Amino acid sequence: MAESIINFTRGIPPADVFPVKDLIECGEAALRRDPYVLLQYSHSGYTPLHEWLGGQYGIGPDQILTSNSSLEIFSFITQHLLSPGARAFVELPSYDRAITLLRRTGAELAGIPLEEDGVNLSILEEELGKNVPVLMYVIADFHNPMGVTTSLEKRKRLVALAEEYGFWIVEDAPYRKLRYLGQDVPSLWSLSPARVLHMSSFSKVLSPGLRLGYVVGPAETIASLSQWAVDSYIGPVLPTQGMVYEYCRRGLLESNIERLKQVYRPRLQAVLSALDKYIPQATWTRPEGGFFVGVTLPEGSDIVSLQKQAEGEGLKLTDGRAFFPDPADGNRFLRIPFCSLTPEEIEEGVSRLARLL
Amino acid sequence: MAESIINFTRGIPPADVFPVKDLIECGEAALRRDPYVLLQYSHSGYTPLHEWLGGQYGIGPDQILTSNSSLEIFSFITQHLLSPGARAFVELPSYDRAITLLRRTGAELAGIPLEEDGVNLSILEEELGKNVPVLMYVIADFHNPMGVTTSLEKRKRLVALAEEYGFWIVEDAPYRKLRYLGQDVPSLWSLSPARVLHMSSFSKVLSPGLRLGYVVGPAETIASLSQWAVDSYIGPVLPTQGMVYEYCRRGLLESNIERLKQVYRPRLQAVLSALDKYIPQATWTRPEGGFFVGVTLPEGSDIVSLQKQAEGEGLKLTDGRAFFPDPADGNRFLRIPFCSLTPEEIEEGVSRLARLL
Repeated sequence: MAESIINFTRGIPPADVFPVKDLIECGEAALRRDPYVLLQYSHSGYTPLHEWLGGQYGIGPDQILTSNSSLEIFSFITQHLLSPGARAFVELPSYDRAITLLRRTGAELAGIPLEEDGVNLSILEEELGKNVPVLMYVIADFHNPMGVTTSLEKRKRLVALAEEYGFWIVEDAPYRKLRYLGQDVPSLWSLSPARVLHMSSFSKVLSPGLRLGYVVGPAETIASLSQWAVDSYIGPVLPTQGMVYEYCRRGLLESNIERLKQVYRPRLQAVLSALDKYIPQATWTRPEGGFFVGVTLPEGSDIVSLQKQAEGEGLKLTDGRAFFPDPADGNRFLRIPFCSLTPEEIEEGVSRLARLL
Repeated sequence: MAESIINFTRGIPPADVFPVKDLIECGEAALRRDPYVLLQYSHSGYTPLHEWLGGQYGIGPDQILTSNSSLEIFSFITQHLLSPGARAFVELPSYDRAITLLRRTGAELAGIPLEEDGVNLSILEEELGKNVPVLMYVIADFHNPMGVTTSLEKRKRLVALAEEYGFWIVEDAPYRKLRYLGQDVPSLWSLSPARVLHMSSFSKVLSPGLRLGYVVGPAETIASLSQWAVDSYIGPVLPTQGMVYEYCRRGLLESNIERLKQVYRPRLQAVLSALDKYIPQATWTRPEGGFFVGVTLPEGSDIVSLQKQAEGEGLKLTDGRAFFPDPADGNRFLRIPFCSLTPEEIEEGVSRLARLL
C-alpha cells in the first residue's frame, strides 16, 4: 500500500494559512508611502513598526529592537552577554537552536528540569547556589519542545530569583498569542521588566519567511544590543518591516491570529486524542496552545532506532536528543509538531508510531 | 547667510535613484508566483536567486550564500574562521565596519599600507614572514575609504601569496559594477577561486534597505558558512529575495547600473575638480568608480579639530581615524563620499573645506 509520508519533524506553519493577498497589498502600500525610508539604510529598523510594537507593550520605541528573526536577536544577546566559561541556564529540554547558539559562545550550560508547570525550582535554587548564570533562557508559553506553560506561581518565583541573584531571563515567546484553551498567564517580562528580555516574532502569527523578530527590554540594554546589531549588519531588512507594519496598522493581525487558532485548535486536540487512543503507555504533556506536544516514550524505547524504523512506515520523526544539553537525556523523547498536519494526518501518524512501539 | 548643510559623511546612495515603481511591481509579481516558498522558512535563501547569481558568476548555486547584507556575511566569516589570537590582515586604511567585526573576534589585526595600485607588497611579504594570517580583507575595486583599485599585477601577486602561504582573501566588491572610467580588472576571485571568498551585494547597485548580500566561494566553505547562517537565523528574509530575483530576471539590473553610472560619474569628476581647484596642497586618490575619494590633508591638519570647525561652516565630515586599526594613523585622513551630492553641492562642500584649512 502506497502511503503518503507523515512528517512529525519541523515546527513550521502550513503554507495555506499565509494571508498572501493581504501581504502583497500591504507590501505595495508601504513601499508607495515610504519608499525613501524602506529602500535606504537604517540603523534601527522601521520606526513606525517600532512605535506600533511599543503601543502593544505599553512602552516607548527605545525599549524595542527588531531584527531579521528572534533567533538572530538571541544570537546577538548571547554574543553580547556571554563569554567562554560564563554560565547559562536552559530548561531541560529546550529549543535545540537556542542550545546551539549558547554553546557557540563557549558558555557552560546547565539544564533545569522542566515539569508540567515550569522548571523544578528546588533544582534551580540548588544550581544558583553553585554559580549564578549570566542568563536563563525560558519559553514560558507553550514550550518548544515540551508544550507546557509555566504557571503564574513559578513565573513569580523565577523573576524573584533573577532579581535576587542578578541574572537575565531571556523569555522567548513566539507562541504566546496562539492559545487554544485556557487563560493567558502574565509574561515574565510584565512581572519584571528590569530583569527580563522578552523576544517574539511574526513567524508563527503571520509568516516565517518575513524573518521579523523583536526583543523588548530595558532601554539601556536595548541600546547596547542595537549597537551590536548595527555593527553586525548596519540595519535589518526594511521592505518586509514596512509590509508588516502596514498589516498591523490595518488591524489585520488580530483577526489572522483568531483564524490560525481555529485551524490549530482541532489539530492539538487530534494529537492528544490519538495519543490517548493509541499509545496510552507513553506519557505526554497537555499543551493549551503553541505548536508542540512533548512525548516521553515508554521505558525501553530508543528514539534513534525508532526514527530509523519510522522511515520504513512513512513517518518522519525528530531526534529528541537535540533538545537536551546532554543528548543521552533525550533517548526517549519525541516532539510532535501538529500545526501543519490535518487532524486525519495526525491520527494516522500517531497510529503508525503506535505500531512501531 | 543661511547655508544648507553639506554632508561628507556616510556612503549612501541618494534616495532619488531607487527604482521604486519597478521594485514594487517585482515584489508583487514574486509573491504572486511563489508565495508558499517566499513566506515560509528556508534554510538557504531563495533558490531561483541563487541560480541567477550562479549564472552571473558561471558557477553552481552550491558556491553561493545569500544573507541579509554582505556585512552580515562578513560577520559569519569572521566568527567561523577566526578565534582570539588568530591573525587577520586589512588594507591600511580599511572599511571601519570590517575592522569592528574583525576586532570582535579577538583576532590580532595588521594593516598593510595601501598605495595607488593596491597594498605595498614588500610590507605584506614582511608581515607574512612574521606570522601567516587566517584571512586578509581586501576591497580591490574602488576601495572604501580610499577609492583606489588594485592593479592586475598586484592582484596576481596577492592571490599567489594567498596560495603559497595558505590564507583566505576576503574580497569585498560592493562597488565593482560602478566603474565610471577605465577598464574592469579581473576580480581576485576569478584569479584564485580556491583561496578567495568574494562578497558583494545589491546595496549600491539597487537599494541598501533590501539588505541583500552574498558570498561566492568554494562549495565546501560555502556549505560551512551556510550552516553557520542557519544556526544564526534559520534562513534569510525571503520576500525581498523574491523581489530582487524578479528584478534581475526581467533584465532590469544592468540598465539600472548604467543609469546610476550616469548620475555618479559627474559627481566623481566634481570632487576631483574641486580638490584641484581649492585644495591643491592636499593629496588625494583618483578613483575610477565607486563612492569615495580618499584625501590626505596637508601637514599639520588634524581631522578631529577640523571636524568640529566644519560644523560651524555647515559641513559634516567623517572622522578618518575610524578607518585605521591604529586611529592615530588617520589624523589627517578624510573620506569624501560623492554619490549622494550634486556636483554643485560637492564644489560648495570642498570650497568650505578649503576655507577651513
